[in-house]
Amino acid sequence: MKLVVLGAAGRMGRTLVKVIAETQGATLHAAIERDGSPALGSDAGLMAGIGENGVTIGSDIDAAIDGADGIIDFTAPAVSVEMARHAADKGLVHVVGTTGFEAQDDDAIGNAANSGATIVKSGNMSLGVNLLAVLVEQAARALGPDAFDIEVLEMHHKHKVDAPSGTALLLGEAAAKGRGIALSDHAVRVRDGITGPREEGTIGFATLRGGSVVGEHSVILAGEGERIELSHLAGDRAIFARGAVRAALWAKDKPAGLYSMRDVLGLNA
Amino acid sequence: MKLVVLGAAGRMGRTLVKVIAETQGATLHAAIERDGSPALGSDAGLMAGIGENGVTIGSDIDAAIDGADGIIDFTAPAVSVEMARHAADKGLVHVVGTTGFEAQDDDAIGNAANSGATIVKSGNMSLGVNLLAVLVEQAARALGPDAFDIEVLEMHHKHKVDAPSGTALLLGEAAAKGRGIALSDHAVRVRDGITGPREEGTIGFATLRGGSVVGEHSVILAGEGERIELSHLAGDRAIFARGAVRAALWAKDKPAGLYSMRDVLGLNA
Amino acid sequence: MKLVVLGAAGRMGRTLVKVIAETQGATLHAAIERDGSPALGSDAGLMAGIGENGVTIGSDIDAAIDGADGIIDFTAPAVSVEMARHAADKGLVHVVGTTGFEAQDDDAIGNAANSGATIVKSGNMSLGVNLLAVLVEQAARALGPDAFDIEVLEMHHKHKVDAPSGTALLLGEAAAKGRGIALSDHAVRVRDGITGPREEGTIGFATLRGGSVVGEHSVILAGEGERIELSHLAGDRAIFARGAVRAALWAKDKPAGLYSMRDVLGLNA
Amino acid sequence: MKLVVLGAAGRMGRTLVKVIAETQGATLHAAIERDGSPALGSDAGLMAGIGENGVTIGSDIDAAIDGADGIIDFTAPAVSVEMARHAADKGLVHVVGTTGFEAQDDDAIGNAANSGATIVKSGNMSLGVNLLAVLVEQAARALGPDAFDIEVLEMHHKHKVDAPSGTALLLGEAAAKGRGIALSDHAVRVRDGITGPREEGTIGFATLRGGSVVGEHSVILAGEGERIELSHLAGDRAIFARGAVRAALWAKDKPAGLYSMRDVLGLNA
Repeated sequence: MKLVVLGAAGRMGRTLVKVIAETQGATLHAAIERDGSPALGSDAGLMAGIGENGVTIGSDIDAAIDGADGIIDFTAPAVSVEMARHAADKGLVHVVGTTGFEAQDDDAIGNAANSGATIVKSGNMSLGVNLLAVLVEQAARALGPDAFDIEVLEMHHKHKVDAPSGTALLLGEAAAKGRGIALSDHAVRVRDGITGPREEGTIGFATLRGGSVVGEHSVILAGEGERIELSHLAGDRAIFARGAVRAALWAKDKPAGLYSMRDVLGLNA
Repeated sequence: MKLVVLGAAGRMGRTLVKVIAETQGATLHAAIERDGSPALGSDAGLMAGIGENGVTIGSDIDAAIDGADGIIDFTAPAVSVEMARHAADKGLVHVVGTTGFEAQDDDAIGNAANSGATIVKSGNMSLGVNLLAVLVEQAARALGPDAFDIEVLEMHHKHKVDAPSGTALLLGEAAAKGRGIALSDHAVRVRDGITGPREEGTIGFATLRGGSVVGEHSVILAGEGERIELSHLAGDRAIFARGAVRAALWAKDKPAGLYSMRDVLGLNA
Repeated sequence: MKLVVLGAAGRMGRTLVKVIAETQGATLHAAIERDGSPALGSDAGLMAGIGENGVTIGSDIDAAIDGADGIIDFTAPAVSVEMARHAADKGLVHVVGTTGFEAQDDDAIGNAANSGATIVKSGNMSLGVNLLAVLVEQAARALGPDAFDIEVLEMHHKHKVDAPSGTALLLGEAAAKGRGIALSDHAVRVRDGITGPREEGTIGFATLRGGSVVGEHSVILAGEGERIELSHLAGDRAIFARGAVRAALWAKDKPAGLYSMRDVLGLNA
Repeated sequence: MKLVVLGAAGRMGRTLVKVIAETQGATLHAAIERDGSPALGSDAGLMAGIGENGVTIGSDIDAAIDGADGIIDFTAPAVSVEMARHAADKGLVHVVGTTGFEAQDDDAIGNAANSGATIVKSGNMSLGVNLLAVLVEQAARALGPDAFDIEVLEMHHKHKVDAPSGTALLLGEAAAKGRGIALSDHAVRVRDGITGPREEGTIGFATLRGGSVVGEHSVILAGEGERIELSHLAGDRAIFARGAVRAALWAKDKPAGLYSMRDVLGLNA
């Protein structure tokens, strides 16, 4: 599958170039940067630290997507909306890992998916996190609040400036969805001092910070005499690039439309 | 829900009596032991260590099930087959935690379920283990063998005489089912010395023994840069009784038929 | 070793009676309750659920300690101070798991230890927690705050009304001692919202609540690219009784004096 | 502290160059490769992927160590023995992470340490693993085999070809030392099928393999109702380089002699 990488000189772009080179069935067709980027004209492989690969970073989108099968795009909403239109015109796969979309952007991307683009879009491209969210939702549905308490634990490196992590909240949302409740009404974000006994039906959060931990999340369902723990442990940040490349390969033969990572995982039957 | 406990003087029976007393919506209707049991005539609550409850242990099944809603039964195949017939005659719920059935026993129980009994039958009545098996199957299906390696880890107390545990094998079977393979062809049960690199598609087992650990199981799906861990931790042996009582309550308004713990968990949609 | 149990009809007393019966080298010499207790005259074994053992619960301390080797005492400060005097008079071992002492009580107990009693006294009689605190102190000393961040995580059952647990704070104190700092100046007890990056030298706490978890504590020392986790997992509440009985056996041949669980563990060399 | 890196173009050498650049109080004084290495004449910073640092890789040892404070050396026994002599002549610090020494090499290095070199030598330069081994030894000594069972669990990536890992065996040796027994007489390396109950005093091993896990080790001491878990988790392979640089800084003001990582950690008091 011939793939075009946007933002090829950025951190995620370089990781994508590397992951594509490591992935059977995927080849780098073109590498794009914005007009004016100092990386224009450089070799994409050299930029990615994997040795020269003969793909020169350019800014001409039409030339880049000519002959391509798909586009991978962790950029900005405006760029992604424009790329979705190109994908619709050419009937391409478009994997969108960009975040921060407004409602009108979502509409535009939905229109492109209705007009010939095969789009996979997710706020978190990690296979594991997306799978975990599905499993958490099911577990929370199966094990009711009268018998099982739900807690979300996360650990990240010492540089992280907010708590709980976005992924912890995403997992809390998945649990709340499984329970048919709103997370905002049931979240217990901190405990300190005399808290009283745990209130039934709440979803608790706990945060650890230290060292260089990339990101670890556990959802605990604790009942009388037993508990279930569902965890994701990230060891490096390339997992988002790997998930995006896998999404592209999965989408290759799919009809045009808008898909999520749950579809890629085969969990939206 | 008025419940009859079989084998009420045994370890599991006494735990059932205790759990029913603790469970809202459930009451002990009758407690049965086999003819000749020294416990006949004793108070079932006293036997269970929860104080006198006025239910005298008897051996007359017809008297016991008269006016009852359901039967809970962790006994022996012949007893369970007989009880299933009684349940069919009276249109009762019958929760069967007995193990060791032959094919003809299964047939007999299926017939009872077709003739008016609402039967929930499972080799492992723990809610958590049954849920975990479902999640493992899904995870193994979603994360293919080219990218994710599956390992099953278990720890039990020092008195356990076999390895891996039956539950570890059950979880390995769930993973194999998700992958569409036979566990027996892909299990790696031990590693020692020069093993060579891990073979793709295998399912590894590792066993820990020590102290008084009731039972802990983890299924690990390890990929490049990330892993998923799905775990069950048992803190006491009453979880099987709790699962059975929950199964009975779930089955109360269900049509006659044969159900599993997956149905109780709402995971067989 | 012939042991006298105080408060023999209470929850801890009954557990002590049971643990002594299970422990090689220990026998129950006498079982004491306060004057007026309804348990006076009952068989201590029956009260403990281990079957009649022929030891009748009484309230005459002099008679009880006559011929005894040691006393185990999880009662109240005034009782423990009085028992320490008895132990000094008779040259007995006295294991004190009582909490809530005032300074003058500590003095009185110290005096008894100087006058012939072999006293082991600790606010937490679990072997494992005491060992963990020693290891945490060493680890915190060895791995400095410039390179390693310390976090304390604990999980307890849903009925617990305060956070963090006393044991979590005890472990935090051990870490602070290893670092030569005051915990109160460096503890970060909660994180929520925009916290900024982790401040060097702090000791973080995180709390999980759910189900029936007896008590689990982990101290994490997280550095660049590696971390150490030191954990204690309690499975039942008898561990305090077991620690006390082990302390008594350890103290049998020791000279009179005041000892801690660190001495019992051989970690105060 | 001005440090000389041997084998500066190899994987460990490049990591050392990077870690030194990141470490306050350490600077790269010279970078050495063997005669004939194609890296001679290259910039050591460029080779390490941290940008040009002006230190040209050379092969002249006398020139390199002139004006240096210390040498870091993960090379080969013969090279390390020679470097130890240089360190003795110049009164330098010499950190030796090389493995595979014969007895006569150890003697030669010991002689150098008696003749003016301040040598820190260890088969595993990770701070965390060395600390863990010390803690395991103490825990195994404090918690006797009658009451606590010891298990060693490790997980590594799918490419690892042997089991258990060298570090798992090192931790098992530490536990055996704490117990005053020989590991070889008490190790249980696999369990499969009907094993019978766990034999008192044994040390069990369990091995997991999968994905890209760098290396995780846990030593579990499991007793009745409680257990201690002591774990090390490696997130990247640079921890050995970081430990070596820390050893060098620690050794700067120490008298000549032979030291281990336990000394660096302050645990050999």
